[in-house]
Amino acid sequence: MNYTQKMLRDDALRGKNIVVTGGGSGLGKAMTKYFLELGAQVAITSRNIDKLQNTVKELEEETGGKCFAIQCDVRHYDQVEAMRDEAVSKMGSVDVLLNNAAGNFISPTERLSANAFDTIIDIVLKGSKNCTLAFGKHWIDQKENDKTILNIVTTYAWTGSAYVVPSATAKAGVLAMTRSLAVEWAKYGIRSNAIAPGPFPTKGAWDRLLPGDLKEKFDLAKKVPLKRVGEHQELANLAAYLVSDFSAYVNGEVITIDGGEWLKGAGQFNILEQIPEELWDQLEQMIKSKGKN
Amino acid sequence: MNYTQKMLRDDALRGKNIVVTGGGSGLGKAMTKYFLELGAQVAITSRNIDKLQNTVKELEEETGGKCFAIQCDVRHYDQVEAMRDEAVSKMGSVDVLLNNAAGNFISPTERLSANAFDTIIDIVLKGSKNCTLAFGKHWIDQKENDKTILNIVTTYAWTGSAYVVPSATAKAGVLAMTRSLAVEWAKYGIRSNAIAPGPFPTKGAWDRLLPGDLKEKFDLAKKVPLKRVGEHQELANLAAYLVSDFSAYVNGEVITIDGGEWLKGAGQFNILEQIPEELWDQLEQMIKSKGKN
Amino acid sequence: MNYTQKMLRDDALRGKNIVVTGGGSGLGKAMTKYFLELGAQVAITSRNIDKLQNTVKELEEETGGKCFAIQCDVRHYDQVEAMRDEAVSKMGSVDVLLNNAAGNFISPTERLSANAFDTIIDIVLKGSKNCTLAFGKHWIDQKENDKTILNIVTTYAWTGSAYVVPSATAKAGVLAMTRSLAVEWAKYGIRSNAIAPGPFPTKGAWDRLLPGDLKEKFDLAKKVPLKRVGEHQELANLAAYLVSDFSAYVNGEVITIDGGEWLKGAGQFNILEQIPEELWDQLEQMIKSKGKN
Amino acid sequence: MNYTQKMLRDDALRGKNIVVTGGGSGLGKAMTKYFLELGAQVAITSRNIDKLQNTVKELEEETGGKCFAIQCDVRHYDQVEAMRDEAVSKMGSVDVLLNNAAGNFISPTERLSANAFDTIIDIVLKGSKNCTLAFGKHWIDQKENDKTILNIVTTYAWTGSAYVVPSATAKAGVLAMTRSLAVEWAKYGIRSNAIAPGPFPTKGAWDRLLPGDLKEKFDLAKKVPLKRVGEHQELANLAAYLVSDFSAYVNGEVITIDGGEWLKGAGQFNILEQIPEELWDQLEQMIKSKGKN
Repeated sequence: MNYTQKMLRDDALRGKNIVVTGGGSGLGKAMTKYFLELGAQVAITSRNIDKLQNTVKELEEETGGKCFAIQCDVRHYDQVEAMRDEAVSKMGSVDVLLNNAAGNFISPTERLSANAFDTIIDIVLKGSKNCTLAFGKHWIDQKENDKTILNIVTTYAWTGSAYVVPSATAKAGVLAMTRSLAVEWAKYGIRSNAIAPGPFPTKGAWDRLLPGDLKEKFDLAKKVPLKRVGEHQELANLAAYLVSDFSAYVNGEVITIDGGEWLKGAGQFNILEQIPEELWDQLEQMIKSKGKN
Repeated sequence: MNYTQKMLRDDALRGKNIVVTGGGSGLGKAMTKYFLELGAQVAITSRNIDKLQNTVKELEEETGGKCFAIQCDVRHYDQVEAMRDEAVSKMGSVDVLLNNAAGNFISPTERLSANAFDTIIDIVLKGSKNCTLAFGKHWIDQKENDKTILNIVTTYAWTGSAYVVPSATAKAGVLAMTRSLAVEWAKYGIRSNAIAPGPFPTKGAWDRLLPGDLKEKFDLAKKVPLKRVGEHQELANLAAYLVSDFSAYVNGEVITIDGGEWLKGAGQFNILEQIPEELWDQLEQMIKSKGKN
Repeated sequence: MNYTQKMLRDDALRGKNIVVTGGGSGLGKAMTKYFLELGAQVAITSRNIDKLQNTVKELEEETGGKCFAIQCDVRHYDQVEAMRDEAVSKMGSVDVLLNNAAGNFISPTERLSANAFDTIIDIVLKGSKNCTLAFGKHWIDQKENDKTILNIVTTYAWTGSAYVVPSATAKAGVLAMTRSLAVEWAKYGIRSNAIAPGPFPTKGAWDRLLPGDLKEKFDLAKKVPLKRVGEHQELANLAAYLVSDFSAYVNGEVITIDGGEWLKGAGQFNILEQIPEELWDQLEQMIKSKGKN
Repeated sequence: MNYTQKMLRDDALRGKNIVVTGGGSGLGKAMTKYFLELGAQVAITSRNIDKLQNTVKELEEETGGKCFAIQCDVRHYDQVEAMRDEAVSKMGSVDVLLNNAAGNFISPTERLSANAFDTIIDIVLKGSKNCTLAFGKHWIDQKENDKTILNIVTTYAWTGSAYVVPSATAKAGVLAMTRSLAVEWAKYGIRSNAIAPGPFPTKGAWDRLLPGDLKEKFDLAKKVPLKRVGEHQELANLAAYLVSDFSAYVNGEVITIDGGEWLKGAGQFNILEQIPEELWDQLEQMIKSKGKN
């Protein structure tokens, strides 16, 4: 077994109906594919219906599963309600909401207009909130339970990050919503969790995020203790666990899957990695003899 | 000396010009008063100009300081820019932005409309963002430095909280913005920090937050290890420290001042507080003899 | 599928050799059993060799797997080295170290002797450190890689907790070691992670922890949003994921599996759960009309 | 006013009797000096009585305050009890315990002996625990209250750090003890808090920590957004606040004073700081046009 392989038992998601926002490409598509392979039905949403329909066709052929395309701009609550109703109508019910739709771009914050900042808050935070509210109200109203909300956030949701401040701000809001509702809606049989992925490059989003030669210049793999970026199946495995019943006692949790990237930057003396072995040999005697104060 | 007294040296804020959003009442007013006493000029903002002007009059009389009222709905960036320009014009420059304006109400989340949720995000998160952006752009553009942003958040910005989910969500966003800009804007001589206050009851906000007899029913002092709510001067002391030059090396930090309230709920065995001394006497022998596994 | 079932594909741990300290009973035994079912060889350690040998016999019969009993007091580094050498000798090599051995008892801190406090630090923190050091040195020296360390901590490793302060203190140390080595030893192909379990009652440890009728008096299920304690298989599923190659990009992470318990206590307004629906009906109008300040 | 100046009102600590472990040099000495200037009596402890007596003499001359030297190896509980009794006897009572004594050295973890690791746990964690227990028992037994414990930890107490793993481990334990007792001992009128200092170089400890030319090679100021290390008076100001009654509602809190150092490393895109303004100009159009997915 290795980390590019699929981990859950066959049919682990059989009978689950899942909505993946932003499911037409990138990580959303990778997770959707694995959910289909595990027996789930999945409705994917995006503003771009053509992209969605291509993805649906491709994934149904590859997996033999049942996938649906639903156009939706998550910024507009009425569109979200319509999307929810269509998902329920097509799949019979919805068991899992995966808030994956997002937007991000790099910029010094002082160069941002108030509007540009708002756009990211609207897509990421209000979008996730709209979907959460629409499905939550429905589930609670219909007295359905065994439901799960999974939100894709980021490691800088709690540390913050320069140059992606609108995204940091919005994702932090999503994280707080995750934890708040994990407590508040547990009584209705709704769990809430999040994943904070480190660098999982995708053709679309990462190319847009780090355009031109920035991807080479700022090689994110170098910041990762494990010295590699993530494989999509690794994220899909974790997501499948979190939307399955196997994780039924995980609630209000955000799981970081970043190879240790954020910790490597955070720890004060991690930079000493640059000291070569021979220098450690020399230092050893020097240090050991005076180490206590 | 005790905690109702004022801690900083006289004139500790002499020469500082400070903008306090939501400064017309409650904690914003308490902090403003102490800043004036310490020699700062303060411009307070709110949507309600009448309330502001009364506060200005009252505080100038009480402190002999110089205070200004500027009407502003922080949700609208053009109003925020106008407010900033007026503050600069009236005080000559601005050294400190204190994002204190907020909105909150209690409600089961499933009872909220998408609009009601958005309103809190707009006031708290977009409002703080608007002010931060307007002042930050100005300071950077003018090449001014030694500036400080102080944001008032809450202890549930990172734990989340049921029944105040829009506020939790928005305050978490403000916290991430605080930490992001602490790093990004440090090169321009701008520090960013936050305070997370626990229960500091105010005539206005808390009465609205816990209406009717809820304040008695859910006595927040009981949740605090120190068994009391906070005094406004305690918050004002901490805020004055964080906007003063004395805290120049504190950057990107959120300081919790809640008497230990959130920790008391969080720690798994804190409920054993209910065990009386006599029972501990009995348990002592029983437990000590078998404590290891 | 439900949460009492087993999640990973057959043979997911085939070829893995695992050491589980404190593996003779309780959660250590439950994890060991599942590892064996998934094809791993497991060496379990404890001070009590008789208990271990009974467990080995029982688990081998139940699972058809290969399990070994190794006596070891993890407080003594020489015993730990001997245990490691025996594990390597019996299984050929070791791929996974699961630091699960622990000790805990409830007591007001002021009633503790310095020695009683030290005992828990020695078992939990120094014990985990001893095993980590012994296996880490060996792996690095032998230039083996694809190794994993998994540490069992607790939710109060970062919040702290009254009445179990030695355990809180020691587990916090283990958590910091986890995160430190996730960065430092990644270059040697060694990952480090932790699980923070909430209430997973076991015959042995929990009976000792909450003796007499305390288990009934302080029903930990009530503190959990999901209103139940955890099933051992739920913890075993998560542990199996974390020691498998499927989690290869999870590094330096602590995963909480507590049904949301710690968050429920932590969030400031979670207590409003006690408000009945009818009162919310009344409050709704009252609050909505005055919610902003 | 600037950050090298003293912030609290004259006599802010008049009437307070304070014990500072490791008070003979470095940051402990800097804090002690300021406490004396503010009117406190201070007993400083260390294993080295000669160093202590020189410090006492120097500080009494400089401040006109009353300072005492008490020899104590905090690793030994009987010495700690004797130290406590001597402090009480010399000052009449003790109001504040400042756990500052520590030990640290840099080393790849796999090069450490189990004993070397233990030594740091013993000094830092068991030492702080011994002092906390000795004073706590005394205060509770004597029914004294308005007491404060202040612990010096580090930013890597929660992120961990490579190459200083024993210290990370031990300081994390101290942090958990701080939070645990903040809740548990609040009922006895004892507060507990911590400070996590970033780089505050001292003649002794830092020279030993980064020997030879490592101090130049790994210039810690470069990792700090504010581009400087801390001034001792900045730490002393914060410590004086936390041991004074002005911080009476701060409990269970750890305040980081590091100029934003840990955040700068932690946030994923903080490395984009290296992009020059001209490149941002070019990127701006490119990025803005495609920023949403």
